[in-house]
Amino acid sequence: MHIDAPRLLRRLDDLAAIGALPEGGVQRLAFSDEDLAGRNWVQYHLEALGLQVRIDEVGNLFGVLYPEGGPIDAGAIMFGSHTDTVGRAGRLDGSLGVVAALEALEVIVTSGWRPARPLVLASFVNEEGVRYMPDMMGSLFHAGDLSLEAVREARDRNGVSVGEEMDRLDYAGKDELTDLGIDTFLELHIEQGPVLETLNRHVGIVTGVQGLSWFEVTVEGASNHAGTTPMDLRRDAGKHAADLAARLRILTDEIEGLRLTIGSMTWYPNLINVIPDRVVFTVDARHPDPATLEDAENRIRSLCTAAHRPEKGLTVAWKPLARVAPCSFASGVVEAVADAIDREGLTGHRMISGAGHDAHILSRCYRAGMIFIPSRGGVSHHPDEYSTDEQIIHGAQVLLRSILSLADYPTSAS
Amino acid sequence: MHIDAPRLLRRLDDLAAIGALPEGGVQRLAFSDEDLAGRNWVQYHLEALGLQVRIDEVGNLFGVLYPEGGPIDAGAIMFGSHTDTVGRAGRLDGSLGVVAALEALEVIVTSGWRPARPLVLASFVNEEGVRYMPDMMGSLFHAGDLSLEAVREARDRNGVSVGEEMDRLDYAGKDELTDLGIDTFLELHIEQGPVLETLNRHVGIVTGVQGLSWFEVTVEGASNHAGTTPMDLRRDAGKHAADLAARLRILTDEIEGLRLTIGSMTWYPNLINVIPDRVVFTVDARHPDPATLEDAENRIRSLCTAAHRPEKGLTVAWKPLARVAPCSFASGVVEAVADAIDREGLTGHRMISGAGHDAHILSRCYRAGMIFIPSRGGVSHHPDEYSTDEQIIHGAQVLLRSILSLADYPTSAS
Repeated sequence: MHIDAPRLLRRLDDLAAIGALPEGGVQRLAFSDEDLAGRNWVQYHLEALGLQVRIDEVGNLFGVLYPEGGPIDAGAIMFGSHTDTVGRAGRLDGSLGVVAALEALEVIVTSGWRPARPLVLASFVNEEGVRYMPDMMGSLFHAGDLSLEAVREARDRNGVSVGEEMDRLDYAGKDELTDLGIDTFLELHIEQGPVLETLNRHVGIVTGVQGLSWFEVTVEGASNHAGTTPMDLRRDAGKHAADLAARLRILTDEIEGLRLTIGSMTWYPNLINVIPDRVVFTVDARHPDPATLEDAENRIRSLCTAAHRPEKGLTVAWKPLARVAPCSFASGVVEAVADAIDREGLTGHRMISGAGHDAHILSRCYRAGMIFIPSRGGVSHHPDEYSTDEQIIHGAQVLLRSILSLADYPTSAS
Repeated sequence: MHIDAPRLLRRLDDLAAIGALPEGGVQRLAFSDEDLAGRNWVQYHLEALGLQVRIDEVGNLFGVLYPEGGPIDAGAIMFGSHTDTVGRAGRLDGSLGVVAALEALEVIVTSGWRPARPLVLASFVNEEGVRYMPDMMGSLFHAGDLSLEAVREARDRNGVSVGEEMDRLDYAGKDELTDLGIDTFLELHIEQGPVLETLNRHVGIVTGVQGLSWFEVTVEGASNHAGTTPMDLRRDAGKHAADLAARLRILTDEIEGLRLTIGSMTWYPNLINVIPDRVVFTVDARHPDPATLEDAENRIRSLCTAAHRPEKGLTVAWKPLARVAPCSFASGVVEAVADAIDREGLTGHRMISGAGHDAHILSRCYRAGMIFIPSRGGVSHHPDEYSTDEQIIHGAQVLLRSILSLADYPTSAS
């Protein structure tokens, strides 16, 4: 079976027209009018295919293709992504995974072949977490890690709750999925990083998602006059923070595969002629191996402790902000993707995902996996986000073939 | 002759009550109601002493004690400071110099002795430059380095001009001082640094003011996802800026006496999980020797040039923000101060001023000098600014004795 490339590309453009910004880019913030319009667009196409549409209590959308003979409780294969976006997004992040899932279902439905298991397209709400925290809200609810109450009570910066928006938009449903016996989730996504482009590979076989640990570090010294304070009498929080940050960055040389980012640093009072008395910075540490991530966290804490020098008038305090454990994807799903790439005659690359995704959350309850396509320059969350038509088509074709394989489509025929 | 210590201390408190903030500290921002009230307080005391008061076109206040026999054009000795303050000041910065000058004049007037030269108390407007730029506005006007028009057209952040405030408050006068033949300016001030306290000396003999050169440095890289971007593919503006800042700080080891401060650093987009694409920081470099300051400036530019690596996707741009040449005070004034300290049986310390002062500006047209007293912890521009009563009294007594010496008071009698 083969995807219909022109239809796939046209639909990506159609979906990107919903919430298109006059200055370029797309905005479909979770639980907004545009977000609902995007979901309705998906629902329309699912219904046009004759699929059953279900909407759960937080607004996650599912389209179900039943096996020949109707519903059975037998290991449904679920696949999809999300259609909400950041404030000024490109057209691919999330949307690609949903539109390609729709394309795969359409190809299968029109082929006349029916698998022995249900196939389920899933589009999860609020993956981005821009308007409402936490991100991956819809998949967290689906996995049982977030209550309906917690979802409804989340508030945006204007104080508007998800519950109020869901009621206003008639956004939520009451459908459940327990009867489907879902056992697999597969997500196609853009890489949002430069690895595939740099290595010149067609498709990424995602073997897991790295774990993440966030810290906030506060360095305090003493604020004094830049002109009148001799160098040896200073307690310069800016210099001390920079020294500590430099030492922390060296951890990436010491721990194989560690990604450590100091993305935010704020100085106080931040005046040209005043020695800073306080600097607050963040540390974002990521690693795919649980034990190694823990080792990195311990070393971060140790380095902060070593830099805490109250006897010199320089103190360092830190606190954890967030932590997500790494996950490894199910070997059966990973190998299905690898095999699909081979059969398509494409070059694959086994890699971990640097970013969190719905598939990461769903790996807690299902066999999960992901497929990546290259992102030009690694750019995402920006209108410059770009993958070539060919890369998009490759990704969708690999998704289709992986679904077929997971759904036991006769190999000789695929 | 000796100052009246209780009167001096009482008057410092009286002046500090004008513009006192409920939460502690004093606010008499230039060209505000409180600023005018402070100036009126000084004027009241000058007139009570029977002195002639003059107010120039920008509101600088002068109190003139004529020689026996009335006005003569013969090398007036001027002394004073300023009574405007920063937003939340202590009671000494500026005010000490004016109140001690008033005290010195009162002691001389009541002694009955008359010098052969005019003695002039000066209180310059807007030394602090907090509400209206530039700082040292009044002395710059007096020195002929700033026009009346430029003063009147300066605007605060609400768009209100100095001219509008001067008209509203009837702040300005029309008096000139050309008839006085001023040739000397002496200013008593708190050190605003920790040197005298650290060395445990009574009084600072200020031999000059260090020059200052300010730069703004902009480092640009590329903003990418902290999770998905491998370490070796990053163009981290935060790391690059930190490396450059660390290298710049080493200049203080390489150039004897250089004070270099990175006081302000701002990251963009400053998000925990995004590699920063832009960092803007400032460099404040100070040295008392003109050639050495120039050498430091050249090395700062060279280090920025060396860090400009467009081939690596990391660029560095810089621009000068401000420059003030160093000044050396007149030896005659410096030695008069040193001699006065000796005669008072106090310990002096020859030092440069780290901060700018009206005396720095006036050194362009007069023989100038300064006297420092210790600042506890080097703190100023803050309600915690503090010098002991004894230190204040020492400073005022040294000012009085220096004025007498410069005004040719018979040495044997002093």
